This record gives sequence, structure tokens and C-alpha cells, in this order.
Amino acid sequence: MGNALATDLYQLTMMQAFWKSGYNPYATFDYFVRSIPLGSYLVVAGLEYVIDYIKRLRFEKSDIEFLAKQGFDEEFLDYLKDFRFTGNVYAMQEGSIAFQKEPIIIVSAPIIEAQLVETYLLNKMNFSTLIATKAARVVYASRNKPVVEFGMRRAHGEGYLEATRAAYIGGCQSTSNVMAGKKFGIPIAGTMAHSFVMSFDSEIDAFRTYAKVYPNKSTFLIDTYNTIDGAENAIKVAKELERHGGRLIAVRIDSGDLLVLSREVRKMLDDAGLDYVKIMASGDLNEWRINDLLEKNAPIDMFGVGTELVTAQPKPALGGIYKLVEISTSNGNVPKMKITNDIAKATLPGRKSVWRIIKDGLFEKDIIALANEKISGVQLLEKVIENGNVLAKKESLNAIRERVQANMRMLPDIYKELDNAPLYPVELSKGLEELSSKIIANRRERTI
Amino acid sequence: MGNALATDLYQLTMMQAFWKSGYNPYATFDYFVRSIPLGSYLVVAGLEYVIDYIKRLRFEKSDIEFLAKQGFDEEFLDYLKDFRFTGNVYAMQEGSIAFQKEPIIIVSAPIIEAQLVETYLLNKMNFSTLIATKAARVVYASRNKPVVEFGMRRAHGEGYLEATRAAYIGGCQSTSNVMAGKKFGIPIAGTMAHSFVMSFDSEIDAFRTYAKVYPNKSTFLIDTYNTIDGAENAIKVAKELERHGGRLIAVRIDSGDLLVLSREVRKMLDDAGLDYVKIMASGDLNEWRINDLLEKNAPIDMFGVGTELVTAQPKPALGGIYKLVEISTSNGNVPKMKITNDIAKATLPGRKSVWRIIKDGLFEKDIIALANEKISGVQLLEKVIENGNVLAKKESLNAIRERVQANMRMLPDIYKELDNAPLYPVELSKGLEELSSKIIANRRERTI
Repeated sequence: MGNALATDLYQLTMMQAFWKSGYNPYATFDYFVRSIPLGSYLVVAGLEYVIDYIKRLRFEKSDIEFLAKQGFDEEFLDYLKDFRFTGNVYAMQEGSIAFQKEPIIIVSAPIIEAQLVETYLLNKMNFSTLIATKAARVVYASRNKPVVEFGMRRAHGEGYLEATRAAYIGGCQSTSNVMAGKKFGIPIAGTMAHSFVMSFDSEIDAFRTYAKVYPNKSTFLIDTYNTIDGAENAIKVAKELERHGGRLIAVRIDSGDLLVLSREVRKMLDDAGLDYVKIMASGDLNEWRINDLLEKNAPIDMFGVGTELVTAQPKPALGGIYKLVEISTSNGNVPKMKITNDIAKATLPGRKSVWRIIKDGLFEKDIIALANEKISGVQLLEKVIENGNVLAKKESLNAIRERVQANMRMLPDIYKELDNAPLYPVELSKGLEELSSKIIANRRERTI
Repeated sequence: MGNALATDLYQLTMMQAFWKSGYNPYATFDYFVRSIPLGSYLVVAGLEYVIDYIKRLRFEKSDIEFLAKQGFDEEFLDYLKDFRFTGNVYAMQEGSIAFQKEPIIIVSAPIIEAQLVETYLLNKMNFSTLIATKAARVVYASRNKPVVEFGMRRAHGEGYLEATRAAYIGGCQSTSNVMAGKKFGIPIAGTMAHSFVMSFDSEIDAFRTYAKVYPNKSTFLIDTYNTIDGAENAIKVAKELERHGGRLIAVRIDSGDLLVLSREVRKMLDDAGLDYVKIMASGDLNEWRINDLLEKNAPIDMFGVGTELVTAQPKPALGGIYKLVEISTSNGNVPKMKITNDIAKATLPGRKSVWRIIKDGLFEKDIIALANEKISGVQLLEKVIENGNVLAKKESLNAIRERVQANMRMLPDIYKELDNAPLYPVELSKGLEELSSKIIANRRERTI
């Protein structure tokens, strides 16, 4: 089914108002985030969905019929039948690092078209960027230890696939989500559930049954009853496995004091000559808890992170917005700026570019400039759609994920601090400053 | 595409372990919520998705091929080709009110089947119940004033449709989400965006253009520049409309001090003889802000609620779980109970029913009992799937939504308090208490 109706009703009513009044100027909108809810940076994700949506954007017969029942005019609906997106889109690549106020996507098109795509673009970009950023934080806290995404059961319904994709982009090593493995080729991983252990008469029976089927691929969940007893049972079965040429991969601890338990279990494993058996920890983990465990040298080799990752706690929404910045009419280009009483909600006018200044291999600062200004730095926006035609090549998730890792290495550590990271310097160019001041001054002189 | 792989990998590895070891006892699992994250009650939603999933649960050719590449055994995959769910499912109806610890769904099936459905069931039930509950809170706070769900742009990706469905079940009057209108028949509503106003030379031009197209259906967004100026412009255009037989529906205020602004704007409208023009408020609203506004008698007629509703802030995940409570083998039924060091994580053993005691038309208390106990009250669980066949009739969303409203009227007000609502009394029957005690005592006597 097509996605043309995956939008807010007001986009369609505004489109009809533009269309019926014969006013359809070329317009430019910026997608950006005013302030970052958690930390100082964003890992951009979701662009592939947006490009794919714009490419396929058509009103199907059933869409038109539905809109007719809602009272839309026949002539307008006739127009929608042949609707195509004919504009240009500029965007930061997926896996880019972006900061507050920077246009991440710029859409330029006849306003009827540019307006329609707002809601879907926001839905996709806000969520994928939210989760990719959260994952990057969790992965950073985990140092080089693998993080497995475990969140499907708590993800927001069908958003679970996008959550897994974004978590992988952000740096997770694998996922429990089998569908994401099939659809996206993301590595899948899993252990066992408490119910498996409980379904047998005893924990050791459960471990033995599992080990027999997976002599070289087992991870035992050892906290169903008592973690120390569970570790003893795991060790017994690991030794039995050794006698038959098998090797236990890991034990997983899903509850309790993970620092104390991981230390005890590590010692028990080592004392039994099972130094190769890894310890996986899970259970309400997030970047802060992982950081705390590793700062105290918890002997944990890998982390399973679910709920807090895929619901981006404690800030489960990214407030990215899509704002009009220019209208082109027969009178020329008119830069637009929202100036309300609330100065924090002011927007930056005009067509822009974003430049990154890199020094000694590290991000130093960014500059938001007018599109016609030349700054010495790296341009972050590239044209991905031209006159409705997609220019961007589809990238592999691994390429995007590696871009994140390369970018994260270039982001100075201070900005990766989990708490109280400073604001990354994002400056406005001279041209943009002047334009903003001019518009504000003009506004003061006249009544709206 | 089928949804058999919409699951965690460990479900499939456990299934293979059961299958290869020839151990596939009949098992019973309870879906329940240990403690409610926000408030004292849950509005149950999501069951339709679960029933539909179980009914269609098949491994397609491409699923089998994918699993073969992941190293699953050929014989097991052969078994999956003919996989069907053959068990029984008991559930509370969508739109029921549920409380902590109560089984909301009970699945009884050969453990291979019962295990597979866990992840999808949790994904659907946790999210829809989370949002339906949040919506019920917001709607309760709004007294009888309509709440329009505006959240698609901040919803978690493709979860946006489930979010809208659940918000409607929970009591929202309509949604901005056009796709939900098409798919579910939910009433759709919309106003205009700041970009519409900004795209014209002046605010009043924007209002006039819109009014000309929608002489009897316009809601003007009046806070793009300055809300009081916006109200003046809206009044001018409303009077112009009157001269041509049109009527302005409402003005919307999306920022600023909604109490102060709504009072000023109401007065301006009334002074202009426009008492029929309604005021809609939006902008980072939630149940607490709405309650605060209405306690102070803000003259607001309807609310648009987006981000905080569809992401269920500040508690964006419902931790519902799916726990093994009984295994049936040739030795008879063995009730199962998870007893860890953490007593809060203990589960209730055995097959159960849930009874509600209603007094003078109000919910008094609930009793969780063993399935074979008879309590005088209303049984909340009904069989919805029998031997794999769906018994439940598909319900209309309006029927579910009305059930919520009827239930909410029977829930004493004290439990609807936004903050510090007391715990609703959920008692255990004598039989369930005795069974739990017996299992705990037995456990103490033996080593696991």
C-alpha cells in the first residue's frame, strides 16, 4: 500500500487551499533539531526511508476515494491523481553527526509538494535519529564490548524494525530481532529465556538439554533461581561439554547486582578453568549503568540492552521540526523567519549550507551559512533528489555504521560525556547573521 | 509478508532445542504487568493484533531459507514448514481495565508454540496498552472536552498507526493521522501549520485565503507571530466570513501561556460577537498541563495532544511480561513459579482466572484465582482461541472505545487521580495463596 496518506490531515487541507487559490510558490523547508534532548550530538538516521517515500509518493485510487468521502474537492483530487514530487532534496548522509540548529535535510519544491512530505519525513527522521543517537551513547559507554539490541518486546509496535536498524547504525553489534536479520541483514543473536529453564524439572536439566543441541553455541541464562547456583550448574555442564569436545560460549546474568555477581561468577568460571566462557549482562541496562559497571571493572564481556535503548529513555522523542525558510515568487526569493515572542523558537532564514571545520582530525566547530557563501571546511549537505529524481545511491547498513564509527572517532571525547557534555560550537556565518538581523529589524518596523 | 520471524532469535533456538530433544510439554504462560508505570490502572489494547498474528502464523519459504542460512537444522526447518498454532488463548477484551499482576492474556499450547508467540504478543500488547492507558489519562484530565491526537511526527516510526488506534480506544475524539482514518475509520481532524501562515506576505492574507476555501470549516492558527495580533486578524476574517454566510470554527493557540492567552482571546472573540468560535490549545500538552489549565477554568474548548501522548511520557515503556506458570507432562500438571532472591519478581503459579467484584456499579476489588475456583464476581478472561481456531469476533473500534468509557465510569475516581492514585485491591484467592506457599516451601527444602 502507498504511503501518500501517511501524513497529517492539515497538510492535505493546506494543499487544497494553495491549489484552489492558485498560489503555489517554490518553497524551501529545513529539517533541524532546535536543542538536543540528550547529550550534545545527533547520529543522523532515517534518510533512506524518506528518499524511498518521496520516490514512490503517489495517491492511489483508494486514497482518492477516501479523500473524496472526507469532502475534498473533485478538481483537487484530480490533481492529486497525477501528483509527483518534483523538487530538490539536500541531506546529510545517514551516519553523519549533526548538532543543534543545523539543517539535516533541506526540501525545495512547489509548496504544495514540500508541505505534503513534512509529516512522514519528521516521523522517520525523528525516530531513527533518536535511536541511532541513543545507541551511540550506549556503545560509547560500553567501550569496545559488544552491545546486543534486545528491545523488540518493548519497542513501540511496528516501530521495532526501524528501532533495530537505527540501533545497528548507532553501533550495536547485533540484535535479537530475527525479522531485522532477514530484512536488513543485521547479525542476529540470542541466548535462552527463564521459561526454558523453568520448563524442566531442574536448571541443570535445562542446561544439559540445550548444550546437547548447541554444544558450541550455548549461552546459559543463570539467574532463573539463584545466580550462584546457576553458575555452578553452568560450570558442571561446561565441563561435561569439554569432555565431548564442546565449549560453552557464555553465561548471562539478567538480574541482581551485576557488579557483584559478575565478579563472583567470573572467579568461579576461572577457578574451574573456564576462562574462555564469557559473561553477558542484561536487565534494564542503559549507558549510565553500563558506564558505572565498567568504571568499576565489572568483568562483563558483552551487554544486552533492550527497553531503554529502543524507547530512548529518559527522552523518548526527538523534537525535530520542519520549518519554512524561503518562498520564491515572481518577486524573487523571500527568506522567511519565524520570530515569536519566544526567541528560542526563532528559526534561521534562507537557503543554507552546513560546514564542518576539522582540525588535527577532530571536529572543531560547524558553521551554518547561506547557500551562496563559501566557507573553508567540509560541506555536510549533499543533493540526494533533483527535480524529483533520486541521485543518492542506496548505502549498505554496514557502510552507514562504519561512517558513524569514523565520525565518533573525530568527535572530541568531551562531547561524548554522558552527562553535562558542553554544547558543540555551531556558528552562523556573517551572511546568515546579517540576513537574520535585517529580517528582525524589518519586522519591528511594521505591523504583521 | 508473514510475521513468523517477528520474534527474538532465542525463541527459535529454544524451539529447536525442545524439538530436537523430543520434549514438548503442554505449557501455560501468563501475560501480565507486575507494576503499572503510571497511575493505578491499565486500559487493555492490542489483542486484535495478537489474534490476527496467531491465526496467520506460518513460516514462509523465504523464512525457512533465512533460518537455514543461520544454521538451523534441516529436520527442524521441515517441522516449521507445517507449523501451526494449535493451542488455547484466554484474554481480557480490548478496552478492559486491568490491574497489576492480573493475567491479561493466558496462552496454553505445546511449549514450542507457546514460546514462539511471546515476543510479538509482548510487542503488541505492551505498546497498545501503554498508549490506550495514557490516552485515558489525558482524556480524563480534559473532562468532557475533545482531545485530538496529533502525534504522528513524533511517534516511533511505523508504530504511529498503532499509537493512533490505541489513543482512539483510550478516548481521543479524532486524529490528525490520515492513514489511520483510511485504515481504521477513525475520525480525522486538522487545522493549519505555521508554514501556511508564513508562506503569505501577511497573516491576514493567509487567513483570508484559507477562509475562502473553507468558509465553514476553518480553524486559524493564531500564534505564528503574536497571538493577540493573530486573534485580531482571525476576528477580522471571521467577520468577513459572516458577511458571506460563513462561520469560523475555531482558533488554535500552539505556544505561550495558554491560560493567559486563552482568556484574552476568549474575551476578544466574545467582545466581537464571536462566541461561537472555539479555542483549541496545543503544544507540549499532557494530562497534568491540561488538568492545570482546566482547574483554573481556562476557556479552552478542545486540546491537540501529540508527542507526550504517543510516546507515553514520562514512562515510554510498559514492562508487561510473559511467564511460564504451568507445565503438563505425563506426570500431570506442574504449576511453575519463578522465585528469585528478588521477591518482587516472583510470579504466580498455575492456570488462573481473574474475577472482578462490582458493588453499586463501581469496581470494588479483583481476585486472581486458580482456574478451577469459583468466585462470585465477573470473570474477566474469555477464551478467544481454541485449538488454534479463533473464537473471538472482530470488534469495531467504536465498540472497544465505548467499553473503555463504560469501564472508566465504573472505576472509582480515586484510582483515576493523575498523581498518587492508590493501588487498586487485587487479592489472591485462597487456592492460589495455598499453591504459592506450597511451592515456596518445597523450593526451600531442596536444592535446585
